[in-house]
Amino acid sequence: MRTGIATVCLAGTLREKMQACAVAGFDGIEIFEQDLVTSPLSPEDVRKLAADLGLNLDLYQPFRDFDSVPEDLLAANLRRADAKFRLMSRLGMDTMLLCSNVGTATIDDDDLRATQLSRLAHLAGEHGVKVAYEALAWGKYVNDYEDAHRLVDMVDHPNLGTCLDSFHILSRDWDTAPIEAFNPEKIFFVQVADAPKLSMDVLSWSRHYRVFPGEGQFELAKFMGHVVRAGYTGPVSLEVFNDVFRQSDVERTAVDAMRSLIWLEEQSAAWLEANPAPAEGEEASKAAGPAARRRYPMELATLPRVAEPAGFNFAEVRAGDTAGLETLLGQLGFAFNGRHRTKDVQLWTMGHARVIINEEPATAAGAALQQAPAAAAISVAISAVGFDVDSPVIAAARAQQLKAPAVPRKSQANEEVFQGFAAPDSTEIFLCQGSPDGTAAWTREFGDGPGVPAEDRAGNPGAVIDHVNLAQPWQHFDEAVLFYTSALALEPQPFAEVASPTGLVRSQVMLTQDRGVRLVLNLAPLLQQEGPTGASEPGASGTGHRRTYQEHVAFAVDDLVATARAARDRGLDFLRIPANYYEDLDARFELEPEFLATLRELNLLYDRDADGEFLHFYTATVGSVFFEMVERRGAYDGYGAPNAPVRHAVQYDHLHHLTRTS
Amino acid sequence: MRTGIATVCLAGTLREKMQACAVAGFDGIEIFEQDLVTSPLSPEDVRKLAADLGLNLDLYQPFRDFDSVPEDLLAANLRRADAKFRLMSRLGMDTMLLCSNVGTATIDDDDLRATQLSRLAHLAGEHGVKVAYEALAWGKYVNDYEDAHRLVDMVDHPNLGTCLDSFHILSRDWDTAPIEAFNPEKIFFVQVADAPKLSMDVLSWSRHYRVFPGEGQFELAKFMGHVVRAGYTGPVSLEVFNDVFRQSDVERTAVDAMRSLIWLEEQSAAWLEANPAPAEGEEASKAAGPAARRRYPMELATLPRVAEPAGFNFAEVRAGDTAGLETLLGQLGFAFNGRHRTKDVQLWTMGHARVIINEEPATAAGAALQQAPAAAAISVAISAVGFDVDSPVIAAARAQQLKAPAVPRKSQANEEVFQGFAAPDSTEIFLCQGSPDGTAAWTREFGDGPGVPAEDRAGNPGAVIDHVNLAQPWQHFDEAVLFYTSALALEPQPFAEVASPTGLVRSQVMLTQDRGVRLVLNLAPLLQQEGPTGASEPGASGTGHRRTYQEHVAFAVDDLVATARAARDRGLDFLRIPANYYEDLDARFELEPEFLATLRELNLLYDRDADGEFLHFYTATVGSVFFEMVERRGAYDGYGAPNAPVRHAVQYDHLHHLTRTS
Repeated sequence: MRTGIATVCLAGTLREKMQACAVAGFDGIEIFEQDLVTSPLSPEDVRKLAADLGLNLDLYQPFRDFDSVPEDLLAANLRRADAKFRLMSRLGMDTMLLCSNVGTATIDDDDLRATQLSRLAHLAGEHGVKVAYEALAWGKYVNDYEDAHRLVDMVDHPNLGTCLDSFHILSRDWDTAPIEAFNPEKIFFVQVADAPKLSMDVLSWSRHYRVFPGEGQFELAKFMGHVVRAGYTGPVSLEVFNDVFRQSDVERTAVDAMRSLIWLEEQSAAWLEANPAPAEGEEASKAAGPAARRRYPMELATLPRVAEPAGFNFAEVRAGDTAGLETLLGQLGFAFNGRHRTKDVQLWTMGHARVIINEEPATAAGAALQQAPAAAAISVAISAVGFDVDSPVIAAARAQQLKAPAVPRKSQANEEVFQGFAAPDSTEIFLCQGSPDGTAAWTREFGDGPGVPAEDRAGNPGAVIDHVNLAQPWQHFDEAVLFYTSALALEPQPFAEVASPTGLVRSQVMLTQDRGVRLVLNLAPLLQQEGPTGASEPGASGTGHRRTYQEHVAFAVDDLVATARAARDRGLDFLRIPANYYEDLDARFELEPEFLATLRELNLLYDRDADGEFLHFYTATVGSVFFEMVERRGAYDGYGAPNAPVRHAVQYDHLHHLTRTS
Repeated sequence: MRTGIATVCLAGTLREKMQACAVAGFDGIEIFEQDLVTSPLSPEDVRKLAADLGLNLDLYQPFRDFDSVPEDLLAANLRRADAKFRLMSRLGMDTMLLCSNVGTATIDDDDLRATQLSRLAHLAGEHGVKVAYEALAWGKYVNDYEDAHRLVDMVDHPNLGTCLDSFHILSRDWDTAPIEAFNPEKIFFVQVADAPKLSMDVLSWSRHYRVFPGEGQFELAKFMGHVVRAGYTGPVSLEVFNDVFRQSDVERTAVDAMRSLIWLEEQSAAWLEANPAPAEGEEASKAAGPAARRRYPMELATLPRVAEPAGFNFAEVRAGDTAGLETLLGQLGFAFNGRHRTKDVQLWTMGHARVIINEEPATAAGAALQQAPAAAAISVAISAVGFDVDSPVIAAARAQQLKAPAVPRKSQANEEVFQGFAAPDSTEIFLCQGSPDGTAAWTREFGDGPGVPAEDRAGNPGAVIDHVNLAQPWQHFDEAVLFYTSALALEPQPFAEVASPTGLVRSQVMLTQDRGVRLVLNLAPLLQQEGPTGASEPGASGTGHRRTYQEHVAFAVDDLVATARAARDRGLDFLRIPANYYEDLDARFELEPEFLATLRELNLLYDRDADGEFLHFYTATVGSVFFEMVERRGAYDGYGAPNAPVRHAVQYDHLHHLTRTS
């Protein structure tokens, strides 16, 4: 599959965009006219730069307001087109995008349109270039891709074809199957964009909310499947107008974009395998499988196979001063498993829940994590998550092909080497060999610590990491969704919005099908991403943003009440839940008085839905990390979202040292 | 008019919200349930705090999912209501908001609904409280305020009335005139919210995009006029769900909110005067005028009268090092009018365009402007704008009643004292006495400078400040729109979005009717509001945000080409416009070759529309300030928006010191 991207997707100057596209590995680009008009590079400079960078200049775009106009306006439009065709010759480009007319169309007559398009095609032919006609979803008369294709057929000129843009088709819920019947020689170009399903006017939706494939909710693999079956072999090019991507680091966004196409290519191949062409009937069914792909002219590359992780292997918290963390974990009932033989890390376990405390000093961590200046400012933060996978090597190879930045990990003799890479928020993701009994071989590298009372070790033999909640920088939220979708096969759920004293928190759950892994990505309010104005923290100076949003690891146990009582007896500093909460809980759920008293006594939170019940409590926060203990009863599948505002409000209150009355 | 606000409008804890509301001067508040549930304050604490702060607790809200349900669910709902009524007694509150059922309604039967509402009213009566029933715009069966009112009439119980919420009514485009016929004793509460007109699902629109009155596009004065005519005398209370307000400084937002009600009160009185009640016929017409108000039970306070400013009196630029500014202004053809007798400021003029250079050192400026830490980081910035008004005293009194923060201005003997206040972006706004001939008396306080060649002084006798373009912090954009609307009678125009290499810039023009004042508020991409990560600027450390977005003052002249030639001869550093721009211009407009050559030679930009033509050029940037010279031909009323992306791209290129080929 030939990959492409429109320069309008990216931030920066034309030169910066082209360089970033080359680094990310795109085959070609679409030049968005405004990027050229505003550039000091001459057309010849651009042509040479593209050649030097190994980028094909696939499409000049957009040409607007052409068809369905009176004759005098048409003459002016042809003159305008002539100037652009001459410009394209200087650029060495051969295809121009023509959008169906929105603003100046006044005559709704297919014959007239065909005549006008024919004259444009003729002019293009004289310049040795081609025109790809696209139906905009909000085109005045032409807004259906089948109409655009029908006009192209009517004109029947070798220099006029159609451009298929997934947004304009899928935003209108058009059926994509008819694409298969198109003459592939008349499909001059294919643009892909994904989008969240929003109910708003399609123009605003298109201009601001498009995302890269895999970051939205469109059925793009199906769309691409039909395109491939039609016999199209040209570029598959991203055209994504997105307010956030336009202001994010151009090189990162280009990599995110490239990842989306690599993933889409794999998904398209999978769709083709799962959906043999109807016309080919039984024969196709038999041929289903990897071999089936070869029958189509477009080649679809494969990736190392994906398999969803079975569970969390560990969570790692980095701390300059580890005392607070050690106290919390001990009080929760975790056992100290000793220090690592060669590294400054500790292992704490409860059942199969493993927490590594990394004693790396904050300053060294900041210097090492050049991609994450924020990390330097946080004295205690979640720094890594380990996942149990079937084959760490295959999963790591897949992540690498998906352009996940590798994390170098030194290993000593006899030590297990984890394959690792950096997530978009700079959290290190490690791929571990899961074992059926829930143990981990690498824990044997620890062990020189003091013993822990046996009754504590035996406390929660079935404990596991239930979920990990990570704060995401606003620029990289969509990127993170695609990252975990493509590299780890986690599935994004519909997102929730939770009120907090500093704004709404957008909460995106990513799941494996069997719920072995639950990852929660939280997009914190902007002010929490920057830290209070004028506040100074150690190491904060000159390091950019400071995050004050709190992240956490949640552990599931069988008996939360017993766990909470034991923790209380060990002196745990619970997050204190306001008395008003319990009154409201009673009004909503009509709980047994004794049970309600227990909840209140232990600062437990409660939720209930049709599937089951959820009990949980939070610890106080150390640095920007806290812990949660949960008990899932029945088939409860949520996270106590109705209780989240309580947590946010109490944490905010603590953070701001306000005088409280109760 | 009794003013109120729902706590859900604001950021922070319940205590912080209540304190901010009291400081802003609200008469009462609505307690949003979640704010109480998440608060450590007991109901008795809240009651005492409200009393101490002089705040009435107007409305407990919301109570949901009550009506149109089967009997077993109704029993549970009544039990839930009973708990809330008991809570309200502890709070000392007498009115609860009941929303029409969205989620659990299953029976569409008005008689059943009336019976269920009657049972709730009866229960409320037992507790001595009242229920205000509101039709949500997306209510399952009840979503029209007239239906809700009709149900209230059917029930006819003294403890059941209706709540009118402007959003739920105006978002659906319902006619508001029928409100006048409502029995005022059955209107228990009135909530007001404004909103921009967006085409999206009404629930998302409501939850995220509401704004305070005057910041959106709803006809709120008319809505209020009908409410007043109905005879309602209760609180007029803001209920505004807004993603930005939820994360902005609570005290500032509360003041912004209060300003919106003060303004709405005045607008409502004006609407009543302009629209005498239809039933009262000729008599009412005769009574039109201030006296007409007195006939309604609700008292509407008046403000000092508003009159739009006639023009700009001056613009002030603050600079630590003034050399760059002096050079630019001199090259543009401004004459140096000398230094001030007692202050460290210079006056530069061209025709009636006056620019003050304030030599205050950057560090002192930073210390003085505690509300604007950003200012400290900017070595050169627009610091003040003077407006010509009919009566500075009246305009200043009006601004003060609208809670604009006053700016203290020391004056020496014999010097003119300007009335001044601080705009939401911290720019100082001064109110000056305009003179019919365009001169300003205060310029006599300057004069000890060296002479300027006479031919330069005579260069552009008709020059004026055409517009001023100010960057707005993202948290205060809506506040700024209301501020200039209410305090200076500027009218917001539909906003534009302009592409830049660092993201879309939202550009909001505020105008006087005769175009004497054109103020452009630009909402820059977030990254430009923060400055590049890790970059260090003098004075930037520890001062929070740094803005890299550039602001400017534009001057209108009669002959831009002559002005540009003269500036070029004086060595002006023009913003260099790429050659590609002129090729595109030619393709679009088919300009005379000689004219195009002149544009290209002088780095002029060009635009044309049905009304006229626009020529303009930009200077290079000093600090974060640059200047623009414009010539308006015919009735051209824009700002060359199609050219703005060129400016942004070239300025970005300069800022980032990229190697350019041309």
